[in-house]
Amino acid sequence: MTDAAMPQRLAAEALGTAFLLATVVGSGIMGETLAGGNVALALLGNTLPTGAILIVLILVFGPVSGAHFNPAVTLAFLIRGEIGGGPAAAYVVVQIVGGIAGVLVAHLMFDLAAFQAGTVLRTGSGQWLGELVATFGLVLTILALVGRNPSAIPFAVGLYITAAYWFTSSTSFANPAVTIARSLTDTFSGIAPQHAPAFILAQLIGAVCAVAVVRGVFAKAQ
Amino acid sequence: MTDAAMPQRLAAEALGTAFLLATVVGSGIMGETLAGGNVALALLGNTLPTGAILIVLILVFGPVSGAHFNPAVTLAFLIRGEIGGGPAAAYVVVQIVGGIAGVLVAHLMFDLAAFQAGTVLRTGSGQWLGELVATFGLVLTILALVGRNPSAIPFAVGLYITAAYWFTSSTSFANPAVTIARSLTDTFSGIAPQHAPAFILAQLIGAVCAVAVVRGVFAKAQ
Amino acid sequence: MTDAAMPQRLAAEALGTAFLLATVVGSGIMGETLAGGNVALALLGNTLPTGAILIVLILVFGPVSGAHFNPAVTLAFLIRGEIGGGPAAAYVVVQIVGGIAGVLVAHLMFDLAAFQAGTVLRTGSGQWLGELVATFGLVLTILALVGRNPSAIPFAVGLYITAAYWFTSSTSFANPAVTIARSLTDTFSGIAPQHAPAFILAQLIGAVCAVAVVRGVFAKAQ
Amino acid sequence: MTDAAMPQRLAAEALGTAFLLATVVGSGIMGETLAGGNVALALLGNTLPTGAILIVLILVFGPVSGAHFNPAVTLAFLIRGEIGGGPAAAYVVVQIVGGIAGVLVAHLMFDLAAFQAGTVLRTGSGQWLGELVATFGLVLTILALVGRNPSAIPFAVGLYITAAYWFTSSTSFANPAVTIARSLTDTFSGIAPQHAPAFILAQLIGAVCAVAVVRGVFAKAQ
Repeated sequence: MTDAAMPQRLAAEALGTAFLLATVVGSGIMGETLAGGNVALALLGNTLPTGAILIVLILVFGPVSGAHFNPAVTLAFLIRGEIGGGPAAAYVVVQIVGGIAGVLVAHLMFDLAAFQAGTVLRTGSGQWLGELVATFGLVLTILALVGRNPSAIPFAVGLYITAAYWFTSSTSFANPAVTIARSLTDTFSGIAPQHAPAFILAQLIGAVCAVAVVRGVFAKAQ
Repeated sequence: MTDAAMPQRLAAEALGTAFLLATVVGSGIMGETLAGGNVALALLGNTLPTGAILIVLILVFGPVSGAHFNPAVTLAFLIRGEIGGGPAAAYVVVQIVGGIAGVLVAHLMFDLAAFQAGTVLRTGSGQWLGELVATFGLVLTILALVGRNPSAIPFAVGLYITAAYWFTSSTSFANPAVTIARSLTDTFSGIAPQHAPAFILAQLIGAVCAVAVVRGVFAKAQ
Repeated sequence: MTDAAMPQRLAAEALGTAFLLATVVGSGIMGETLAGGNVALALLGNTLPTGAILIVLILVFGPVSGAHFNPAVTLAFLIRGEIGGGPAAAYVVVQIVGGIAGVLVAHLMFDLAAFQAGTVLRTGSGQWLGELVATFGLVLTILALVGRNPSAIPFAVGLYITAAYWFTSSTSFANPAVTIARSLTDTFSGIAPQHAPAFILAQLIGAVCAVAVVRGVFAKAQ
Repeated sequence: MTDAAMPQRLAAEALGTAFLLATVVGSGIMGETLAGGNVALALLGNTLPTGAILIVLILVFGPVSGAHFNPAVTLAFLIRGEIGGGPAAAYVVVQIVGGIAGVLVAHLMFDLAAFQAGTVLRTGSGQWLGELVATFGLVLTILALVGRNPSAIPFAVGLYITAAYWFTSSTSFANPAVTIARSLTDTFSGIAPQHAPAFILAQLIGAVCAVAVVRGVFAKAQ
């Protein structure tokens, strides 16, 4: 998918995940601040920027690193043998580091304390099912298109997350690096750290299910 | 349009329709919950995810099954002789089953009772005309593009439904499988079951009209 | 641009303009009804469907008739010698008839009186300048792209009108057929009939200016 | 990138920047006027038109002038040796003149005084960091795509600014010509003139950083 050198690929994953988190957390702060207590409006102000920046970041960094920005996506490609174990581990590390850096930048842009801990309670079987379904659909979308219509992936992923922010009860984190990073902000998009592990587990299960379903349903053309 | 095996095609129709309904019903619940009584904001939170996920689902499943997700669309292709009677019947069955499964998943994600009956009253000649017009335009869009510009269909359908949610008095169900599934939810996007048959009849009439108009207006190039 | 027979081309212009007006007027009614008095929300519910349906209608009908749906656009192509006087006159007639039919359908879908007269006062030099600028930009966009990047026109026009609904004080009618049709609805998107002629004059001036500017700025590649 | 004559290129830069500013300022006035005090809704009514018109303007004027509309972008191409010093200076002059003309037109469309001075206070390290980050991301996006996927640039830039309006505390001016022009409006999108120089400095630093990062991360394929 890319012939960039590994340091370039890792820089792309780190930068892309940092911009993704700066957008998720920054637009969450902006939306909540301006919405005057109307949570639908705050979520709208969080959704549109997130969907839009995903399209941009995948267009920009896709040719360099594949634009995973997400350990669940990297896991799916690892299971399919399309990335080795060493590069996959390095991807996950820089995704997490980049994501945390993005949260830090968002805090500084809005004159907030750099380091915070999330306090929004996000737990329960409904939200865990939401994370499983959200990640299942996200990874299914990527894997279905990567073999047949790769140039559609940026738009498909951005639009998928635009939808998933609203159709899941958890507002669709769908990404372990995002979950970890969002546990470090006490703002609109935050999550209490003690609720992060269950989200991440549900996300990884969703990703594994997607790999299996893609093998069955999309078998021929790949 | 596809050389996938029939079980794969049926799985694609079921999965796609399930995701469509999970989005319609899930985002309806989310929108209404967060909008603080402002119905325009709730409908906006219902519209954007529905339009977005349709683009994604048609991109993803189009190459496998043609991405009908809609008995009215399958009927149109049956009339045109582009799908046989047996496969068409099988498509409709899995669309309905998939749609109901999607509603179920939406309910579970939002910690609601799995099985419900719709209570929103949607009836009268204005709304029936709305369903006829909405389905006419949807099927016209698909049939006009399938012969000339098939790669535009995912975007055209997603944008068409985005518009039709607002320009019809019925908020554009435009799909018998969607109508049946939405009769099984007592939430924002529901419909009282006794009002579903008239909607479905209007939708099928709209689809048949579209087939006829496309034959006349788009004749040459096909 | 098209080898369709003239009756097909006229049917396409009529149908497309009808759907455009059904969307403009229908979504205006829906938006105002649901927005609870917040005009920004009503306009948002009017804007997104209008922009979306324009993309769809130009994708669908463009290959048949060129998808003018607008006497100002037909005038521009007439000045450039790309459509004859007879066909241009026929285009304008069916655009107006189709637009009025679309308003009628919108009224019937929302259980309103079929025939109405607009009452929204839209007048003054600011709004006239708005119409001139809006139509200038619309025709400039179409003429600039028709020679270099015609497949971008559906998206460019839909996005242009999405912007122009908000950046002009008149909410950008930018279309004489739309102006006439909207003088026949006493709803959100209406215009008092006595204010329509000045809007139409400003629109035609804007279109003529665009033809001249395109000749100068985009000369080489055409 | 273009073989248009220099007067055509300068006309394209001036016209494009004028339309951009008419949209930013005009939709800001419209949004604030209609939003009834809800700033999130006003910003939404400012964001969607700005993102949409950027896509249109880059599609339309890109083939003529490269569609910079932004001295920070012109600076980046100057550093990379892709535009000469003389043309770059001429570009910047017409961008500023065009931007001011666009503000003027917006004021006249909304029946406001033609010449005004901005009063919105926008200052502090958080907002300066916001401008640096916003411009860094914008220029990075353009430079990354110009060598690999130039036809994606209109959509990437429009979507990037859609996101950046919300994820930065400054609502992302990201453009010195825009900053100067917006210091001349006492409306929603204005900026107090005394706060403009620090914004412009941060923007230029962001652009220079982007050139350096692109050299490292995207080196091979260019």
